[in-house]
Amino acid sequence: MQKLVECVPNFSEGRRMDRIRQIVGAIEHLPGIRLLDVESNPDHNRSVVTFVGEPQATAEAAFRLTQAAVTVLNMEEHEGAHPRIGAMDVIPFVPITGVGMDECVALARQVGARIGEELGVPIYLYAHAATTPARRRLPDVRQGQYAGLKTAISTPERRPDFGPARMHPTAGATAVGARPPLIAFNINLATRNIHAAREIARAVRESSGGLVNVQAMGVDLAEQGMVQVSMNLLDYTRTPIHRAFELVRLEAERHGAIIAGSEIVGLVPVDALLDAARFYLRLDGFRRDQTLELRLLEAEQQ
Amino acid sequence: MQKLVECVPNFSEGRRMDRIRQIVGAIEHLPGIRLLDVESNPDHNRSVVTFVGEPQATAEAAFRLTQAAVTVLNMEEHEGAHPRIGAMDVIPFVPITGVGMDECVALARQVGARIGEELGVPIYLYAHAATTPARRRLPDVRQGQYAGLKTAISTPERRPDFGPARMHPTAGATAVGARPPLIAFNINLATRNIHAAREIARAVRESSGGLVNVQAMGVDLAEQGMVQVSMNLLDYTRTPIHRAFELVRLEAERHGAIIAGSEIVGLVPVDALLDAARFYLRLDGFRRDQTLELRLLEAEQQ
Repeated sequence: MQKLVECVPNFSEGRRMDRIRQIVGAIEHLPGIRLLDVESNPDHNRSVVTFVGEPQATAEAAFRLTQAAVTVLNMEEHEGAHPRIGAMDVIPFVPITGVGMDECVALARQVGARIGEELGVPIYLYAHAATTPARRRLPDVRQGQYAGLKTAISTPERRPDFGPARMHPTAGATAVGARPPLIAFNINLATRNIHAAREIARAVRESSGGLVNVQAMGVDLAEQGMVQVSMNLLDYTRTPIHRAFELVRLEAERHGAIIAGSEIVGLVPVDALLDAARFYLRLDGFRRDQTLELRLLEAEQQ
Repeated sequence: MQKLVECVPNFSEGRRMDRIRQIVGAIEHLPGIRLLDVESNPDHNRSVVTFVGEPQATAEAAFRLTQAAVTVLNMEEHEGAHPRIGAMDVIPFVPITGVGMDECVALARQVGARIGEELGVPIYLYAHAATTPARRRLPDVRQGQYAGLKTAISTPERRPDFGPARMHPTAGATAVGARPPLIAFNINLATRNIHAAREIARAVRESSGGLVNVQAMGVDLAEQGMVQVSMNLLDYTRTPIHRAFELVRLEAERHGAIIAGSEIVGLVPVDALLDAARFYLRLDGFRRDQTLELRLLEAEQQ
């Protein structure tokens, strides 16, 4: 089985298409990786790039994309709603197939060290690659954001893991890390009762006594006459989609609410859905390479 | 989206590895197709080859594989438990992605005509490609088998669709057709009651009042202390896995039996399992290209 790593860099430009194209162009024809998606948000003034490939190819691509962002963008002129600390704001490496989290942590370190040294951008390792518990969560790494970090970076507790202990004059700093694939999973309830949605979210999420690896909040979908339990599943390999779904269903019953439907936002590893099929159909010993398309994918990658 | 057709030729040699390799070797490095599987059964003295590719590439591969089987094998010396009419016994074309059944019927006709003309092997079109209802089912096409067809072929009702109205002296005849992907799906029941398994199979299968596109029988798994409802799902796009599963569960309850587990034998289109995930998780608007691996597969094929 081929090794497959996903990389989802976020850079601080979501408005000027020529700049976005210039940055993404740096990896468009790079051998060994496949560019799967570029999503640019003008309000956030931020773009999210998704590519996959074998580990060293994704490392090379992540570096080149950062080099392009550092060259093209100027954080001194940047405005946008989304929290950020640099031109290339964050680079997560995500294990997909035949690769463990350890290997993605090693990639994050390797790429972080290279960006720090060759581009002079201070690097913070985060999530599974973090060197201290205080840097595991991205919001903690981003504390004070671009403007605040300019001065905070010289304090011992904000000292970067790689690169100079001062902000790059135009590109700021970058967070580099390793994390499991994240699944954005929303469940709509056939009720207008936002109180119920909030109660269910509270029951389901890790922070208030529910499932580990699950973030959840209640959302009013006023125009659709429904409410939603909006979730992030932070590690579907430990806490699968169907467990979150069934717990929401159970808690919704208590409020007399039934599930109207659900949605997965963005890309998801196919295993997350095969796991649900395995669970509900009680499949024993079903292997992913029994699916024609995944067998084919492995053949293509040999 | 790339067009993808699966082809699953069965040829009459399952014992002599050198002959099998010689035949399969004819398509091993053919551009445009991917050889996914070769399964040889010595008792049946028969091999099943699975490959996929774009339509014209699979047509070319099917012809070359037949040419090799006709050259290498001699039906006059063939013995085996499985019903068969020729060296290349049967060639089904199966629509997978971006292709309709019509296109696979056209492929079957094209390849059948070419085999008849260039190799002098009589061809029977079957399943969706059949030219008469009497040839839709493969057992009907195979009636009398290799030995019996030698004389029957000269009767008007057994006249082949392509090629000469006499058996090829060493390669016999070949059935060429188009059919949906077939899913072999077995459900194990935590009971030793074979009567219950047979009753449930009767309730589920098309032929005795159950679901269309479903064949089912009750099987005793004496060594495991269980019984099994063994099914073929002949068209999962109309009669999906979860519908068969839920109906078996419902009928099993009536016998006080619970489902111990299930299994899918062999290869299956990934959509068949995504459909189950969609159903149970009540997913709205989930597209297959939201799965990382299928997005990647499409990228690889562009």
